[in-house]
Amino acid sequence: MTEIKILKNILDENRHRADDNRQVFNKHGILALNFIASPGAGKTTLLEKTIFGLKDRLNFAVIEGDITGDYDARRLAALGIPVVQINTEGGCHLDAGMVHRAYQDFRLDKVDILAVENVGNLVCPAEFDLGEAFKVVVLSVPEGDDKPAKYPLIFSEAGAVIFSKIDLLKAVNFGLDKARADVRRINREAPIFELSAATGQGMGEWLEWLSGKVESMKGDEAG
Amino acid sequence: MTEIKILKNILDENRHRADDNRQVFNKHGILALNFIASPGAGKTTLLEKTIFGLKDRLNFAVIEGDITGDYDARRLAALGIPVVQINTEGGCHLDAGMVHRAYQDFRLDKVDILAVENVGNLVCPAEFDLGEAFKVVVLSVPEGDDKPAKYPLIFSEAGAVIFSKIDLLKAVNFGLDKARADVRRINREAPIFELSAATGQGMGEWLEWLSGKVESMKGDEAG
Repeated sequence: MTEIKILKNILDENRHRADDNRQVFNKHGILALNFIASPGAGKTTLLEKTIFGLKDRLNFAVIEGDITGDYDARRLAALGIPVVQINTEGGCHLDAGMVHRAYQDFRLDKVDILAVENVGNLVCPAEFDLGEAFKVVVLSVPEGDDKPAKYPLIFSEAGAVIFSKIDLLKAVNFGLDKARADVRRINREAPIFELSAATGQGMGEWLEWLSGKVESMKGDEAG
Repeated sequence: MTEIKILKNILDENRHRADDNRQVFNKHGILALNFIASPGAGKTTLLEKTIFGLKDRLNFAVIEGDITGDYDARRLAALGIPVVQINTEGGCHLDAGMVHRAYQDFRLDKVDILAVENVGNLVCPAEFDLGEAFKVVVLSVPEGDDKPAKYPLIFSEAGAVIFSKIDLLKAVNFGLDKARADVRRINREAPIFELSAATGQGMGEWLEWLSGKVESMKGDEAG
């Protein structure tokens, strides 16, 4: 029983810190996104292309979560945006305290979108709110159309779902209709985007939706 | 500090249970394998084709680990082999106790290879010995050639590494030489197989190696 109680304390403390982060983000008019996916689903490439597509209109900052190393942080810093790397040293997810420490390095008044790339994992990150406005769950089509049904918690919590690498649809066995229906069964609201960051197919719709989210948030503040 | 101590106790207890499992497997001449990969790397398809390729010569049993559901267990049971499903209900890995309870359902004297398919995850399963003879770590080429460097613990612990879905090599950007070199840097011994369970390419070498492992284990017992 001790073990369970301690886990509950960890989650309670994380929730308080996440609420604090959310207040900070709201105060500065920042749309914070928590990108979650398996290793290799294409989170970093999606972020690269998202930032590249919107950086003339919006200011980005990125927090990169990885077990070890700074490969992805270097890829994104090459776009000329502020990036902080968090190494979890074995931990399978980010938590709100790590994110809190990381964003101290940013000039928050200069940030419109804070993109947090979580550790590659479809399980652990589901339980830890980071203070984000919403989670973006990315599923690459080579992973298979059974994943929403097999990892329901994370898909139920998504504010947006992206089926990525659709340029590979012809080479793999992935039923878009089945995957869409399985997401919709556990999540009635999240928009589902189908895109390839590599070829650009479907990116326009995602970028428009995302910039619309920033505008409506800034509108809420002004009003 | 309490938290860390409890985690240590969990790992210690798991290690004892794993050693017990290992003794049971050795006593019955069972080669136990722990298959670990990201969600969607193709573990289940690899298992299907491995069992199909060797079932005339060797007797298989399978323990399926999933967060929820029994999709994969049903796929494998269709091959006419005994399968037990474990649902972790949110847990990101199997542990030795779960495996212990699961194999009570098998007639162990009839089993040559016990294949345990862990929860889809490249992080958490690395820490929990199940009593296996070795871990088989599967990386599908669409995930990217940077994964051995980004998830070093699991690749360092592998007794065999499989680069899967190599039928997709032309469609994705995956450097076989880079991936091989990165595995070899952290793991000097594990053989590296490159195969496609879908097309059969490279399967022969893997099946030969695996049946050789069973033979040498049975030889050790006899000798």
